Amino acid sequence: MMKLLSHPASPYGRKVKIAAAMKGVKSQIEVITVDTSLPTNPEINKANPLGKIPALIVDGGAQFYDSHVICEYLDSLAPRPVLFPATGPDRWKTLTLGALADGILDAALLLVYEKRFRPEEKWHEPWMVRQRSKIDRALDILEQSPPTWADAPDYGHITTACALGYLDFRHEGRWRTNHPKLIGWLDAFSKAVPAFEETRPPKA
Amino acid sequence: MMKLLSHPASPYGRKVKIAAAMKGVKSQIEVITVDTSLPTNPEINKANPLGKIPALIVDGGAQFYDSHVICEYLDSLAPRPVLFPATGPDRWKTLTLGALADGILDAALLLVYEKRFRPEEKWHEPWMVRQRSKIDRALDILEQSPPTWADAPDYGHITTACALGYLDFRHEGRWRTNHPKLIGWLDAFSKAVPAFEETRPPKA
Repeated sequence: MMKLLSHPASPYGRKVKIAAAMKGVKSQIEVITVDTSLPTNPEINKANPLGKIPALIVDGGAQFYDSHVICEYLDSLAPRPVLFPATGPDRWKTLTLGALADGILDAALLLVYEKRFRPEEKWHEPWMVRQRSKIDRALDILEQSPPTWADAPDYGHITTACALGYLDFRHEGRWRTNHPKLIGWLDAFSKAVPAFEETRPPKA
Repeated sequence: MMKLLSHPASPYGRKVKIAAAMKGVKSQIEVITVDTSLPTNPEINKANPLGKIPALIVDGGAQFYDSHVICEYLDSLAPRPVLFPATGPDRWKTLTLGALADGILDAALLLVYEKRFRPEEKWHEPWMVRQRSKIDRALDILEQSPPTWADAPDYGHITTACALGYLDFRHEGRWRTNHPKLIGWLDAFSKAVPAFEETRPPKA
């Protein structure tokens, strides 16, 4: 039995849970909830010295991270659907979309951390503007041409959906006011991948 | 001719430059210096809406990022040396080492950004302690058993070397005081991969 260290609120953990469901390996994974908002947490530090979730511990004890790596590992466990195109232009397109969506998440997390880990007098508006503008530019590119899929969504689409889901969860879904095509895109993803709804984070 | 948007001081850009040299494709890449410390930079934003370097523009205009994705793309352009093992335990080990070293870099960058993007009264010591402890735990794991290679260093080793190089560049090489095995490891890497020294960032 594999062990996944994660948290219901983690968008990176959500990526992995969706990938596991799509690959049909969910039943082989025990999910262990860890809290990374503590000053330090020995349980996650032991699995990943960076203290970040998700981390996967496989049979035999090897530890894999980050979410990109874990998703690619899970993809290797079953032939279909293909979450990571093997090579060629499709692969670089999928991986770059994943990096774009992870970048949205990284910036959105830094905005949350600004308020979680600092007293209000240490909040710095120009830093927050910098992070918001990364998110806004990335969303505008996605809105111009939402990423399509053929047979099934892949890793790039999963990551994009989890990024939008996190903006709904932690940033009041403000992205919805001016990205109508992306709203339709997320609805279509949610219909194609039931695990998206099943992994929705609990209300904050 | 491919175009690489980067900066001489970027450790992530350094990863890509080393990968390009090892794969023998350096002469096919024009390096364009961009400054991401500005409030905003249209040149990089156009290639990567996240405003992050490195970004690679290939013939035909497709844009690839982040450094992990670009390195894997470059690896696909020539058969040897193998920077990304094709599959199996070796692949997950290499990718997880890359994620560990990227995590060191991410934390080290946040420490630099704390002082670059905030006035001193907004620096927050507990946040900096949090980032330093990620770096320290990761270094201690690496010191316990420095990552070996068989024929040639791979992507995991390149990323580790660039992380240590960045700690030398921006954090006064404090890691050297208590990681003797890693010092020897970096010397061996530097001998095996001449591009490491050739891409050393200029004195700050």
